[in-house]
Amino acid sequence: MDAAPNTALIDDLVRRRLEELLPQKIEEALARREAEHTPAMTIIVTKGTLDWAYPPMILSTTAAAMGLNVTLFFTFYGLTLLLKDPKLRVSALGNPALKMPMMGGHIGMPNLMSMIPGVDSGASAIMKGMMKKKGIASFEELRGLAIESDVRLIACQMTMDLFEYTLDDLIPGIEIGGAATYIEVAAQSEINLFI
Amino acid sequence: MDAAPNTALIDDLVRRRLEELLPQKIEEALARREAEHTPAMTIIVTKGTLDWAYPPMILSTTAAAMGLNVTLFFTFYGLTLLLKDPKLRVSALGNPALKMPMMGGHIGMPNLMSMIPGVDSGASAIMKGMMKKKGIASFEELRGLAIESDVRLIACQMTMDLFEYTLDDLIPGIEIGGAATYIEVAAQSEINLFI
Amino acid sequence: MDAAPNTALIDDLVRRRLEELLPQKIEEALARREAEHTPAMTIIVTKGTLDWAYPPMILSTTAAAMGLNVTLFFTFYGLTLLLKDPKLRVSALGNPALKMPMMGGHIGMPNLMSMIPGVDSGASAIMKGMMKKKGIASFEELRGLAIESDVRLIACQMTMDLFEYTLDDLIPGIEIGGAATYIEVAAQSEINLFI
Repeated sequence: MDAAPNTALIDDLVRRRLEELLPQKIEEALARREAEHTPAMTIIVTKGTLDWAYPPMILSTTAAAMGLNVTLFFTFYGLTLLLKDPKLRVSALGNPALKMPMMGGHIGMPNLMSMIPGVDSGASAIMKGMMKKKGIASFEELRGLAIESDVRLIACQMTMDLFEYTLDDLIPGIEIGGAATYIEVAAQSEINLFI
Repeated sequence: MDAAPNTALIDDLVRRRLEELLPQKIEEALARREAEHTPAMTIIVTKGTLDWAYPPMILSTTAAAMGLNVTLFFTFYGLTLLLKDPKLRVSALGNPALKMPMMGGHIGMPNLMSMIPGVDSGASAIMKGMMKKKGIASFEELRGLAIESDVRLIACQMTMDLFEYTLDDLIPGIEIGGAATYIEVAAQSEINLFI
Repeated sequence: MDAAPNTALIDDLVRRRLEELLPQKIEEALARREAEHTPAMTIIVTKGTLDWAYPPMILSTTAAAMGLNVTLFFTFYGLTLLLKDPKLRVSALGNPALKMPMMGGHIGMPNLMSMIPGVDSGASAIMKGMMKKKGIASFEELRGLAIESDVRLIACQMTMDLFEYTLDDLIPGIEIGGAATYIEVAAQSEINLFI
Protein backbone atom coordinates (compact mmCIF):
# COMPACT_ATOMS: atom_id res chain seq x y z
CA MET A 1 0.00 0.00 0.00
CA ASP A 2 1.10 3.52 -0.83
CA ALA A 3 1.09 6.08 1.97
CA ALA A 4 0.41 9.08 -0.31
CA PRO A 5 -3.25 8.46 -1.23
CA ASN A 6 -3.89 7.43 2.34
CA THR A 7 -2.49 10.76 3.54
CA ALA A 8 -4.64 12.68 1.08
CA LEU A 9 -7.70 10.70 2.17
CA ILE A 10 -7.02 11.24 5.85
CA ASP A 11 -6.27 14.90 5.28
CA ASP A 12 -9.57 15.30 3.50
CA LEU A 13 -11.42 13.61 6.35
CA VAL A 14 -9.63 15.72 8.96
CA ARG A 15 -10.51 18.93 7.13
CA ARG A 16 -14.13 17.93 6.74
CA ARG A 17 -14.49 16.98 10.40
CA LEU A 18 -12.76 20.17 11.52
CA GLU A 19 -15.07 22.31 9.38
CA GLU A 20 -18.00 20.50 10.99
CA LEU A 21 -16.83 20.39 14.59
CA LEU A 22 -14.89 23.62 15.14
CA PRO A 23 -17.71 26.20 15.03
CA GLN A 24 -19.79 24.12 17.44
CA LYS A 25 -16.87 23.41 19.80
CA ILE A 26 -15.85 27.07 19.79
CA GLU A 27 -19.42 28.10 20.63
CA GLU A 28 -19.44 25.54 23.44
CA ALA A 29 -16.13 26.78 24.80
CA LEU A 30 -17.31 30.41 24.74
CA ALA A 31 -20.62 29.52 26.43
CA ARG A 32 -18.76 27.52 29.09
CA ARG A 33 -16.35 30.39 29.68
CA GLU A 34 -19.27 32.78 30.10
CA ALA A 35 -21.10 30.46 32.49
CA GLU A 36 -17.99 29.94 34.60
CA HIS A 37 -17.03 33.62 34.60
CA THR A 38 -17.86 35.65 37.71
CA PRO A 39 -18.83 39.17 36.64
CA ALA A 40 -17.14 42.00 38.49
CA MET A 41 -17.81 45.62 39.41
CA THR A 42 -15.49 48.41 40.52
CA ILE A 43 -16.43 51.82 41.86
CA ILE A 44 -14.07 54.76 42.34
CA VAL A 45 -15.54 56.49 45.39
CA THR A 46 -14.57 60.17 45.38
CA LYS A 47 -17.24 61.93 47.41
CA GLY A 48 -17.58 62.09 51.16
CA THR A 49 -20.98 63.64 51.79
CA LEU A 50 -23.93 61.79 53.33
CA ASP A 51 -25.96 61.71 50.11
CA TRP A 52 -23.11 60.55 47.83
CA ALA A 53 -21.99 57.96 50.38
CA TYR A 54 -25.11 55.90 49.61
CA PRO A 55 -24.79 55.01 45.90
CA PRO A 56 -21.46 53.13 46.23
CA MET A 57 -22.69 51.26 49.30
CA ILE A 58 -26.11 50.31 47.87
CA LEU A 59 -24.64 49.30 44.48
CA SER A 60 -21.76 47.31 45.95
CA THR A 61 -23.79 45.39 48.54
CA THR A 62 -26.50 44.61 45.95
CA ALA A 63 -23.91 43.47 43.39
CA ALA A 64 -22.14 41.31 45.99
CA ALA A 65 -25.49 39.72 46.94
CA MET A 66 -25.97 38.94 43.23
CA GLY A 67 -22.63 37.13 43.13
CA LEU A 68 -20.40 39.78 41.54
CA ASN A 69 -16.85 40.40 42.69
CA VAL A 70 -16.85 44.00 43.91
CA THR A 71 -13.96 46.39 44.48
CA LEU A 72 -14.32 49.91 45.89
CA PHE A 73 -11.42 52.32 45.45
CA PHE A 74 -11.70 55.25 47.89
CA THR A 75 -9.91 58.39 46.79
CA PHE A 76 -10.07 62.19 47.25
CA TYR A 77 -13.01 63.21 49.48
CA GLY A 78 -14.32 59.64 49.30
CA LEU A 79 -11.55 58.45 51.58
CA THR A 80 -13.41 59.97 54.54
CA LEU A 81 -15.99 57.16 54.13
CA LEU A 82 -13.37 54.75 55.49
CA LEU A 83 -12.69 56.78 58.63
CA LYS A 84 -13.55 55.11 61.93
CA ASP A 85 -15.95 57.98 62.68
CA PRO A 86 -16.97 59.40 59.28
CA LYS A 87 -19.37 62.21 60.50
CA LEU A 88 -21.13 62.48 57.13
CA ARG A 89 -23.04 65.63 56.19
CA VAL A 90 -25.22 66.49 53.22
CA SER A 91 -24.88 69.86 51.57
CA ALA A 92 -27.90 71.59 50.05
CA LEU A 93 -25.60 74.27 48.62
CA GLY A 94 -25.29 74.44 44.86
CA ASN A 95 -27.74 71.55 44.66
CA PRO A 96 -31.05 73.04 43.56
CA ALA A 97 -32.48 69.54 42.96
CA LEU A 98 -32.47 68.66 46.67
CA LYS A 99 -36.04 68.22 47.83
CA MET A 100 -36.55 68.82 51.52
CA PRO A 101 -39.89 68.02 53.15
CA MET A 102 -39.77 71.07 55.45
CA MET A 103 -40.09 73.20 52.31
CA GLY A 104 -43.46 71.65 51.55
CA GLY A 105 -41.96 69.32 49.00
CA HIS A 106 -40.60 72.15 46.88
CA ILE A 107 -37.41 71.18 45.12
CA GLY A 108 -34.32 73.12 46.08
CA MET A 109 -33.34 75.14 49.10
CA PRO A 110 -32.48 78.80 48.57
CA ASN A 111 -28.71 79.23 48.66
CA LEU A 112 -28.93 82.01 51.23
CA MET A 113 -30.68 79.62 53.58
CA SER A 114 -27.86 77.08 53.24
CA MET A 115 -25.44 79.83 54.18
CA ILE A 116 -26.86 80.11 57.69
CA PRO A 117 -24.51 78.16 59.97
CA GLY A 118 -26.25 74.98 61.06
CA VAL A 119 -28.55 74.67 58.06
CA ASP A 120 -26.33 72.07 56.39
CA SER A 121 -26.18 70.01 59.55
CA GLY A 122 -29.93 70.58 59.85
CA ALA A 123 -30.38 69.23 56.31
CA SER A 124 -28.19 66.25 57.24
CA ALA A 125 -30.29 65.50 60.32
CA ILE A 126 -33.50 65.76 58.28
CA MET A 127 -32.15 63.44 55.56
CA LYS A 128 -30.98 60.91 58.17
CA GLY A 129 -34.43 61.09 59.78
CA MET A 130 -36.21 60.60 56.43
CA MET A 131 -34.03 57.59 55.61
CA LYS A 132 -34.58 56.01 59.02
CA LYS A 133 -38.35 56.54 58.72
CA LYS A 134 -38.31 54.86 55.29
CA GLY A 135 -36.41 51.87 56.66
CA ILE A 136 -33.23 52.64 54.70
CA ALA A 137 -30.11 51.31 56.42
CA SER A 138 -27.65 53.86 57.82
CA PHE A 139 -24.33 54.41 56.05
CA GLU A 140 -22.46 52.61 58.83
CA GLU A 141 -24.78 49.59 58.52
CA LEU A 142 -24.26 49.45 54.74
CA ARG A 143 -20.49 49.77 55.16
CA GLY A 144 -20.55 46.87 57.62
CA LEU A 145 -22.63 44.84 55.17
CA ALA A 146 -20.13 45.58 52.38
CA ILE A 147 -17.31 44.22 54.55
CA GLU A 148 -19.34 41.10 55.47
CA SER A 149 -20.09 40.60 51.75
CA ASP A 150 -16.36 40.49 50.95
CA VAL A 151 -16.41 43.74 49.00
CA ARG A 152 -12.72 44.61 48.50
CA LEU A 153 -12.03 48.05 49.99
CA ILE A 154 -8.92 49.90 48.77
CA ALA A 155 -7.77 53.27 50.11
CA CYS A 156 -5.85 55.48 47.67
CA GLN A 157 -2.23 55.81 48.75
CA MET A 158 -1.81 59.30 47.29
CA THR A 159 -4.89 60.63 49.10
CA MET A 160 -3.69 59.07 52.37
CA ASP A 161 -0.40 60.95 51.95
CA LEU A 162 -2.04 64.21 50.82
CA PHE A 163 -4.51 64.42 53.69
CA GLU A 164 -2.02 62.85 56.14
CA TYR A 165 -4.19 59.89 57.10
CA THR A 166 -2.71 56.67 58.49
CA LEU A 167 -4.17 53.15 58.44
CA ASP A 168 -4.93 53.77 62.11
CA ASP A 169 -7.51 56.42 61.15
CA LEU A 170 -9.40 53.89 59.04
CA ILE A 171 -11.71 50.99 59.91
CA PRO A 172 -9.91 47.60 59.94
CA GLY A 173 -9.52 45.46 56.83
CA ILE A 174 -8.64 48.21 54.35
CA GLU A 175 -6.03 47.63 51.63
CA ILE A 176 -3.79 50.44 50.40
CA GLY A 177 -3.31 50.82 46.64
CA GLY A 178 -2.82 53.23 43.79
CA ALA A 179 -4.30 53.99 40.38
CA ALA A 180 -2.44 50.99 38.90
CA THR A 181 -4.12 48.63 41.39
CA TYR A 182 -7.49 50.03 40.34
CA ILE A 183 -6.83 49.83 36.59
CA GLU A 184 -5.69 46.21 36.82
CA VAL A 185 -8.99 45.20 38.45
CA ALA A 186 -11.18 47.48 36.31
CA ALA A 187 -9.76 46.14 33.02
CA GLN A 188 -11.21 42.76 34.06
CA SER A 189 -14.57 44.08 35.29
CA GLU A 190 -17.88 44.42 33.47
CA ILE A 191 -19.13 47.42 35.42
CA ASN A 192 -16.81 50.33 36.27
CA LEU A 193 -18.25 53.45 37.83
CA PHE A 194 -16.81 56.75 39.07
CA ILE A 195 -18.95 58.24 41.82
CA MET B 1 -2.65 -3.98 7.43
CA ASP B 2 -1.49 -2.67 10.78
CA ALA B 3 -3.44 0.22 12.37
CA ALA B 4 -0.48 1.57 14.39
CA PRO B 5 1.33 3.65 11.72
CA ASN B 6 -2.02 4.91 10.55
CA THR B 7 -2.81 6.28 14.02
CA ALA B 8 0.45 8.22 14.14
CA LEU B 9 -0.24 9.65 10.72
CA ILE B 10 -3.80 10.62 11.68
CA ASP B 11 -2.61 12.19 14.88
CA ASP B 12 -0.02 14.20 13.03
CA LEU B 13 -2.46 15.41 10.38
CA VAL B 14 -5.12 16.30 12.95
CA ARG B 15 -2.65 18.39 14.93
CA ARG B 16 -1.26 20.14 11.87
CA ARG B 17 -4.66 21.00 10.39
CA LEU B 18 -5.95 22.12 13.76
CA GLU B 19 -3.02 24.52 14.20
CA GLU B 20 -3.77 25.88 10.74
CA LEU B 21 -7.53 26.20 10.97
CA LEU B 22 -8.15 27.10 14.61
CA PRO B 23 -7.07 30.76 14.64
CA GLN B 24 -9.14 31.48 11.54
CA LYS B 25 -12.22 29.63 12.85
CA ILE B 26 -12.02 31.45 16.17
CA GLU B 27 -11.78 34.78 14.37
CA GLU B 28 -14.82 33.83 12.30
CA ALA B 29 -16.83 32.71 15.32
CA LEU B 30 -16.00 35.85 17.29
CA ALA B 31 -16.73 38.13 14.31
CA ARG B 32 -20.08 36.39 13.81
CA ARG B 33 -20.91 36.80 17.50
CA GLU B 34 -19.96 40.48 17.38
CA ALA B 35 -22.02 41.11 14.26
CA GLU B 36 -25.05 39.51 15.89
CA HIS B 37 -24.51 41.27 19.22
CA THR B 38 -26.21 44.61 19.90
CA PRO B 39 -23.93 46.75 22.09
CA ALA B 40 -25.56 48.33 25.12
CA MET B 41 -25.13 51.38 27.34
CA THR B 42 -26.46 52.17 30.81
CA ILE B 43 -26.33 55.47 32.66
CA ILE B 44 -27.12 56.00 36.33
CA VAL B 45 -28.60 59.50 36.36
CA THR B 46 -28.15 61.09 39.79
CA LYS B 47 -28.20 64.84 39.19
CA GLY B 48 -31.21 67.05 38.63
CA THR B 49 -29.77 70.41 37.59
CA LEU B 50 -30.15 71.92 34.13
CA ASP B 51 -26.50 71.48 33.18
CA TRP B 52 -26.16 67.86 34.38
CA ALA B 53 -29.49 66.93 32.78
CA TYR B 54 -27.88 67.25 29.34
CA PRO B 55 -25.09 64.62 29.33
CA PRO B 56 -27.38 61.60 29.95
CA MET B 57 -29.88 62.82 27.34
CA ILE B 58 -27.28 63.65 24.65
CA LEU B 59 -25.34 60.42 25.22
CA SER B 60 -28.42 58.19 25.32
CA THR B 61 -30.14 59.64 22.24
CA THR B 62 -26.86 59.52 20.28
CA ALA B 63 -26.19 55.93 21.35
CA ALA B 64 -29.75 54.88 20.49
CA ALA B 65 -29.38 56.51 17.04
CA MET B 66 -26.19 54.42 16.61
CA GLY B 67 -28.13 51.24 17.34
CA LEU B 68 -27.16 50.61 20.96
CA ASN B 69 -29.66 49.38 23.55
CA VAL B 70 -29.79 52.14 26.15
CA THR B 71 -31.05 52.05 29.73
CA LEU B 72 -31.20 55.09 32.02
CA PHE B 73 -31.60 54.51 35.75
CA PHE B 74 -32.83 57.66 37.51
CA THR B 75 -31.97 57.86 41.17
CA PHE B 76 -31.36 60.46 43.92
CA TYR B 77 -31.65 64.02 42.57
CA GLY B 78 -31.74 62.63 39.02
CA LEU B 79 -35.26 61.37 39.59
CA THR B 80 -36.54 64.94 39.19
CA LEU B 81 -35.67 64.66 35.47
CA LEU B 82 -38.63 62.30 35.10
CA LEU B 83 -41.14 64.68 36.68
CA LYS B 84 -43.93 65.92 34.43
CA ASP B 85 -42.76 69.49 35.03
CA PRO B 86 -39.06 69.22 35.92
CA LYS B 87 -38.28 73.01 36.39
CA LEU B 88 -34.53 72.53 35.96
CA ARG B 89 -32.08 75.11 37.27
CA VAL B 90 -28.33 75.44 36.94
CA SER B 91 -26.26 76.40 39.97
CA ALA B 92 -23.16 78.54 39.58
CA LEU B 93 -22.38 77.97 43.26
CA GLY B 94 -19.28 75.95 44.06
CA ASN B 95 -18.64 75.63 40.34
CA PRO B 96 -15.78 78.02 39.54
CA ALA B 97 -15.45 76.53 36.04
CA LEU B 98 -18.82 77.89 34.90
CA LYS B 99 -18.25 80.46 32.15
CA MET B 100 -21.01 83.03 31.83
CA PRO B 101 -21.00 85.47 28.94
CA MET B 102 -22.28 88.35 31.09
CA MET B 103 -18.92 88.25 32.89
CA GLY B 104 -17.10 89.02 29.66
CA GLY B 105 -16.22 85.39 29.14
CA HIS B 106 -14.32 85.16 32.44
CA ILE B 107 -14.57 81.70 33.93
CA GLY B 108 -16.40 81.42 37.22
CA MET B 109 -18.89 83.58 39.03
CA PRO B 110 -17.95 84.92 42.47
CA ASN B 111 -19.68 82.88 45.15
CA LEU B 112 -21.10 85.96 46.82
CA MET B 113 -22.89 86.86 43.60
CA SER B 114 -24.51 83.41 43.45
CA MET B 115 -25.80 84.01 46.96
CA ILE B 116 -28.06 86.84 45.84
CA PRO B 117 -31.57 85.38 45.53
CA GLY B 118 -32.47 85.12 41.86
CA VAL B 119 -28.91 84.86 40.55
CA ASP B 120 -29.12 81.09 40.13
CA SER B 121 -32.40 81.39 38.23
CA GLY B 122 -30.76 84.20 36.24
CA ALA B 123 -27.87 81.86 35.40
CA SER B 124 -30.40 79.21 34.36
CA ALA B 125 -32.21 81.64 32.08
CA ILE B 126 -28.91 82.75 30.52
CA MET B 127 -27.80 79.14 29.92
CA LYS B 128 -31.19 78.26 28.40
CA GLY B 129 -30.89 81.32 26.15
CA MET B 130 -27.33 80.41 25.08
CA MET B 131 -28.38 76.87 24.24
CA LYS B 132 -31.40 78.02 22.24
CA LYS B 133 -29.26 80.52 20.31
CA LYS B 134 -26.79 77.74 19.47
CA GLY B 135 -29.56 75.48 18.22
CA ILE B 136 -29.18 72.96 21.08
CA ALA B 137 -32.43 71.12 21.80
CA SER B 138 -34.15 71.80 25.12
CA PHE B 139 -34.06 69.18 27.88
CA GLU B 140 -37.76 68.37 27.31
CA GLU B 141 -37.14 67.86 23.57
CA LEU B 142 -34.20 65.51 24.28
CA ARG B 143 -36.24 63.59 26.85
CA GLY B 144 -39.02 63.17 24.28
CA LEU B 145 -36.46 61.99 21.72
CA ALA B 146 -35.08 59.45 24.21
CA ILE B 147 -38.57 58.00 24.68
CA GLU B 148 -39.17 57.87 20.90
CA SER B 149 -35.78 56.13 20.51
CA ASP B 150 -36.87 53.34 22.88
CA VAL B 151 -34.40 54.30 25.58
CA ARG B 152 -35.45 52.29 28.62
CA LEU B 153 -36.21 54.66 31.53
CA ILE B 154 -36.17 53.21 35.04
CA ALA B 155 -37.02 55.19 38.19
CA CYS B 156 -35.32 54.07 41.40
CA GLN B 157 -37.86 52.56 43.78
CA MET B 158 -35.96 53.63 46.92
CA THR B 159 -35.73 57.26 45.76
CA MET B 160 -39.45 57.26 44.91
CA ASP B 161 -40.17 56.12 48.48
CA LEU B 162 -37.65 58.49 50.07
CA PHE B 163 -38.89 61.61 48.33
CA GLU B 164 -42.52 60.40 48.37
CA TYR B 165 -43.04 60.48 44.62
CA THR B 166 -45.69 58.34 42.93
CA LEU B 167 -45.82 57.13 39.31
CA ASP B 168 -48.44 59.85 38.83
CA ASP B 169 -45.78 62.55 39.36
CA LEU B 170 -43.71 61.12 36.49
CA ILE B 171 -44.10 61.28 32.72
CA PRO B 172 -45.78 58.16 31.25
CA GLY B 173 -43.80 55.07 30.23
CA ILE B 174 -41.47 54.87 33.23
CA GLU B 175 -40.50 51.51 34.77
CA ILE B 176 -39.82 51.17 38.49
CA GLY B 177 -36.76 49.19 39.55
CA GLY B 178 -33.97 48.84 42.07
CA ALA B 179 -30.20 48.47 42.16
CA ALA B 180 -30.53 44.79 41.20
CA THR B 181 -32.46 45.69 38.03
CA TYR B 182 -29.65 48.08 37.10
CA ILE B 183 -26.80 45.63 37.83
CA GLU B 184 -28.40 42.89 35.75
CA VAL B 185 -28.52 45.18 32.70
CA ALA B 186 -25.11 46.81 33.34
CA ALA B 187 -23.29 43.45 33.63
CA GLN B 188 -24.33 42.85 29.99
CA SER B 189 -23.50 46.36 28.73
CA GLU B 190 -20.34 47.68 27.10
CA ILE B 191 -20.67 51.24 28.41
CA ASN B 192 -21.76 51.96 31.98
CA LEU B 193 -21.65 55.51 33.28
CA PHE B 194 -22.58 57.20 36.55
CA ILE B 195 -23.56 60.83 36.00
CA MET C 1 -8.29 -3.97 0.21
CA ASP C 2 -11.61 -2.20 0.55
CA ALA C 3 -11.52 1.61 1.22
CA ALA C 4 -14.86 1.77 3.04
CA PRO C 5 -13.95 0.20 6.41
CA ASN C 6 -10.69 2.09 6.35
CA THR C 7 -12.48 5.41 5.93
CA ALA C 8 -14.85 4.63 8.77
CA LEU C 9 -11.91 3.65 10.96
CA ILE C 10 -9.98 6.79 10.05
CA ASP C 11 -13.03 8.94 10.60
CA ASP C 12 -13.55 7.42 13.99
CA LEU C 13 -9.93 8.04 14.95
CA VAL C 14 -10.11 11.63 13.69
CA ARG C 15 -13.25 12.32 15.70
CA ARG C 16 -11.79 10.83 18.85
CA ARG C 17 -8.59 12.85 18.50
CA LEU C 18 -10.54 16.02 17.87
CA GLU C 19 -12.79 15.47 20.87
CA GLU C 20 -9.64 15.06 22.93
CA LEU C 21 -7.68 17.99 21.54
CA LEU C 22 -10.26 20.65 20.76
CA PRO C 23 -11.27 21.97 24.20
CA GLN C 24 -7.66 22.51 25.26
CA LYS C 25 -6.55 23.96 21.92
CA ILE C 26 -9.51 26.33 21.83
CA GLU C 27 -8.76 27.50 25.38
CA GLU C 28 -5.13 28.10 24.39
CA ALA C 29 -6.10 30.05 21.28
CA LEU C 30 -8.55 32.22 23.23
CA ALA C 31 -5.99 32.88 25.95
CA ARG C 32 -3.40 33.85 23.31
CA ARG C 33 -5.89 36.21 21.71
CA GLU C 34 -6.63 37.82 25.05
CA ALA C 35 -2.93 38.24 25.76
CA GLU C 36 -2.48 39.99 22.41
CA HIS C 37 -5.44 42.33 22.96
CA THR C 38 -4.66 45.89 24.06
CA PRO C 39 -7.20 46.96 26.69
CA ALA C 40 -8.62 50.47 26.42
CA MET C 41 -9.99 53.16 28.72
CA THR C 42 -12.14 56.23 28.03
CA ILE C 43 -12.98 59.07 30.40
CA ILE C 44 -15.61 61.75 29.84
CA VAL C 45 -14.09 64.77 31.58
CA THR C 46 -16.83 67.18 32.63
CA LYS C 47 -15.39 69.15 35.54
CA GLY C 48 -12.98 72.04 35.42
CA THR C 49 -11.96 72.62 39.04
CA LEU C 50 -8.47 71.99 40.41
CA ASP C 51 -9.50 68.98 42.50
CA TRP C 52 -11.54 67.23 39.77
CA ALA C 53 -8.85 67.92 37.17
CA TYR C 54 -6.61 65.37 38.88
CA PRO C 55 -8.52 62.06 38.64
CA PRO C 56 -8.71 62.00 34.80
CA MET C 57 -5.03 62.94 34.51
CA ILE C 58 -3.77 60.46 37.11
CA LEU C 59 -5.93 57.62 35.78
CA SER C 60 -5.11 58.25 32.12
CA THR C 61 -1.34 58.62 32.56
CA THR C 62 -1.22 55.51 34.79
CA ALA C 63 -3.32 53.49 32.32
CA ALA C 64 -1.16 54.65 29.39
CA ALA C 65 1.97 53.62 31.32
CA MET C 66 0.38 50.18 31.82
CA GLY C 67 -0.11 49.85 28.06
CA LEU C 68 -3.80 50.72 27.70
CA ASN C 69 -5.13 52.83 24.84
CA VAL C 70 -6.62 55.89 26.52
CA THR C 71 -9.10 58.44 25.18
CA LEU C 72 -10.24 61.52 27.12
CA PHE C 73 -13.38 63.33 25.94
CA PHE C 74 -13.54 66.88 27.35
CA THR C 75 -17.02 68.34 27.58
CA PHE C 76 -19.00 70.92 29.59
CA TYR C 77 -16.87 72.54 32.33
CA GLY C 78 -14.14 69.95 31.65
CA LEU C 79 -13.28 71.66 28.38
CA THR C 80 -11.48 74.37 30.37
CA LEU C 81 -8.79 71.78 31.19
CA LEU C 82 -7.66 72.01 27.56
CA LEU C 83 -7.26 75.81 27.60
CA LYS C 84 -3.74 77.13 27.07
CA ASP C 85 -3.94 78.82 30.47
CA PRO C 86 -6.49 76.81 32.49
CA LYS C 87 -6.33 78.83 35.82
CA LEU C 88 -7.81 76.00 37.89
CA ARG C 89 -9.45 76.69 41.23
CA VAL C 90 -10.84 74.40 43.91
CA SER C 91 -14.13 75.22 45.57
CA ALA C 92 -14.77 74.35 49.20
CA LEU C 93 -18.39 75.41 48.79
CA GLY C 94 -21.00 72.70 49.09
CA ASN C 95 -18.20 70.24 49.72
CA PRO C 96 -18.29 69.46 53.45
CA ALA C 97 -15.83 66.57 52.97
CA LEU C 98 -12.94 68.90 52.05
CA LYS C 99 -10.27 68.66 54.73
CA MET C 100 -8.09 71.73 55.02
CA PRO C 101 -5.03 71.69 57.25
CA MET C 102 -5.60 75.30 58.43
CA MET C 103 -8.70 74.02 60.21
CA GLY C 104 -6.62 71.73 62.36
CA GLY C 105 -7.49 68.74 60.23
CA HIS C 106 -11.22 69.13 60.79
CA ILE C 107 -13.22 67.99 57.80
CA GLY C 108 -15.21 70.65 55.98
CA MET C 109 -15.08 74.39 55.83
CA PRO C 110 -18.12 76.35 57.01
CA ASN C 111 -20.07 77.60 54.00
CA LEU C 112 -20.08 81.18 55.28
CA MET C 113 -16.29 81.16 55.28
CA SER C 114 -16.22 80.06 51.62
CA MET C 115 -18.47 83.00 50.82
CA ILE C 116 -15.78 85.51 51.73
CA PRO C 117 -14.23 86.68 48.45
CA GLY C 118 -10.76 85.21 48.16
CA VAL C 119 -11.39 82.16 50.32
CA ASP C 120 -11.83 79.84 47.35
CA SER C 121 -8.62 81.11 45.75
CA GLY C 122 -7.02 80.74 49.21
CA ALA C 123 -8.23 77.14 49.33
CA SER C 124 -6.81 76.59 45.83
CA ALA C 125 -3.42 78.01 46.86
CA ILE C 126 -3.37 75.81 49.98
CA MET C 127 -4.26 72.69 47.96
CA LYS C 128 -1.59 73.47 45.36
CA GLY C 129 0.93 73.96 48.18
CA MET C 130 -0.05 70.68 49.87
CA MET C 131 0.30 68.81 46.57
CA LYS C 132 3.68 70.33 45.80
CA LYS C 133 4.93 69.50 49.32
CA LYS C 134 3.81 65.89 48.85
CA GLY C 135 5.64 65.62 45.52
CA ILE C 136 2.42 65.35 43.48
CA ALA C 137 2.87 66.65 39.92
CA SER C 138 1.02 69.82 38.95
CA PHE C 139 -1.99 69.61 36.64
CA GLU C 140 0.01 71.12 33.77
CA GLU C 141 2.79 68.51 34.25
CA LEU C 142 0.24 65.67 34.22
CA ARG C 143 -1.47 67.08 31.13
CA GLY C 144 1.93 67.25 29.37
CA LEU C 145 2.62 63.66 30.42
CA ALA C 146 -0.75 62.55 29.02
CA ILE C 147 0.14 64.10 25.65
CA GLU C 148 3.60 62.45 25.67
CA SER C 149 1.92 59.11 26.53
CA ASP C 150 -0.25 59.33 23.40
CA VAL C 151 -3.47 59.75 25.35
CA ARG C 152 -6.05 60.77 22.72
CA LEU C 153 -7.59 64.12 23.69
CA ILE C 154 -10.96 65.03 22.16
CA ALA C 155 -12.76 68.35 22.72
CA CYS C 156 -16.56 68.27 22.53
CA GLN C 157 -17.77 70.16 19.46
CA MET C 158 -21.06 71.23 21.08
CA THR C 159 -19.29 72.66 24.15
CA MET C 160 -16.82 74.53 21.91
CA ASP C 161 -19.80 76.12 20.12
CA LEU C 162 -21.76 76.80 23.32
CA PHE C 163 -18.93 78.54 25.15
CA GLU C 164 -17.58 80.08 21.93
CA TYR C 165 -14.13 78.52 22.14
CA THR C 166 -11.96 78.01 19.05
CA LEU C 167 -9.11 75.52 18.52
CA ASP C 168 -6.82 78.51 19.02
CA ASP C 169 -7.88 78.76 22.68
CA LEU C 170 -6.76 75.17 23.27
CA ILE C 171 -3.33 73.57 23.64
CA PRO C 172 -2.04 72.00 20.39
CA GLY C 173 -2.84 68.43 19.39
CA ILE C 174 -6.54 68.37 20.32
CA GLU C 175 -9.10 66.57 18.16
CA ILE C 176 -12.68 67.84 17.84
CA GLY C 177 -15.49 65.29 18.14
CA GLY C 178 -19.01 64.67 19.30
CA ALA C 179 -20.94 62.15 21.38
CA ALA C 180 -20.88 59.67 18.47
CA THR C 181 -17.06 59.77 18.37
CA TYR C 182 -17.02 59.00 22.08
CA ILE C 183 -19.56 56.15 21.91
CA GLU C 184 -17.70 54.44 19.07
CA VAL C 185 -14.50 54.30 21.14
CA ALA C 186 -16.24 53.49 24.44
CA ALA C 187 -18.14 50.52 22.99
CA GLN C 188 -14.71 48.93 22.34
CA SER C 189 -13.16 49.87 25.71
CA GLU C 190 -12.92 47.86 28.91
CA ILE C 191 -13.02 50.86 31.26
CA ASN C 192 -15.39 53.79 30.67
CA LEU C 193 -15.68 56.51 33.29
CA PHE C 194 -17.64 59.76 33.60
CA ILE C 195 -15.84 62.25 35.84
